Amino acid sequence: MYYSYDNFLNDCRELIKKLKDANYSPDALLCIARGGMSLTHMLSIALNIRNVYSINAFSYDNNNTRHDLVLTHLPIFQNDLNSVLILDDTIDTGHSMSAVFSRMNLEFPSIEFKTACLVQKDNEIIESNFYARRSNEWIDFYWEVDLLKN
Amino acid sequence: MYYSYDNFLNDCRELIKKLKDANYSPDALLCIARGGMSLTHMLSIALNIRNVYSINAFSYDNNNTRHDLVLTHLPIFQNDLNSVLILDDTIDTGHSMSAVFSRMNLEFPSIEFKTACLVQKDNEIIESNFYARRSNEWIDFYWEVDLLKN
Repeated sequence: MYYSYDNFLNDCRELIKKLKDANYSPDALLCIARGGMSLTHMLSIALNIRNVYSINAFSYDNNNTRHDLVLTHLPIFQNDLNSVLILDDTIDTGHSMSAVFSRMNLEFPSIEFKTACLVQKDNEIIESNFYARRSNEWIDFYWEVDLLKN
Repeated sequence: MYYSYDNFLNDCRELIKKLKDANYSPDALLCIARGGMSLTHMLSIALNIRNVYSINAFSYDNNNTRHDLVLTHLPIFQNDLNSVLILDDTIDTGHSMSAVFSRMNLEFPSIEFKTACLVQKDNEIIESNFYARRSNEWIDFYWEVDLLKN
């Protein structure tokens, strides 16, 4: 499925609605790069959150049997932060989001971390606290394909 | 001027063309948050660069006379990086980009930093190495306004 900018805009609205319905207003956003960057950009402005961080989650093929995940560019959160929302475009296998979520809880035990994404897929590892839609389709996000077109 | 997603896509293409014409291929991208996030997302995929970092540049009003700029979430670049491209949506007064550029050169003297933006405005502080367009118009980027519409 091609996921256009208009799909993105609608899903951002849906996600914002769910955050507001839950009365949830985080102090900072943590974006999983690269996938979560456009989403984090839009939400940070819509929610008026200037504390925006990113983290890299690299996945390496290891003997074709499993993925090794390496996290770099870890944020250092200030002590005055209470709640941080971790964002990615999609939660597919769940490996990236669950690795980031676990590491952040380990490093910053006094902060409450929640997770959000545009598209939640079924998996046995992690279900995000907030998502715009649930789908198991293969998705081509516009930021992955639009620049390849003429 | 309203700067739509289509404007953005065209300007991304223009910027990529200029980077390629200059035979410039950075090892990593450093995004100035929040403005540079969507641009960095698109370019990182189009240029196939997985090393993506972000830095926060907060500007505080100080007695209405000048802006104080505070940089947080500074990246720690690995030793194997030679070239990093710093990205922002627009270079307006030039304060954010020049502060980030100076600080990065100070912290990582062995890395070559270059700068790029979508819209370069005239100012007496910094001209980016690469930009998609030059304009002094007021610009409403889509990520600043689209979620406010119905």
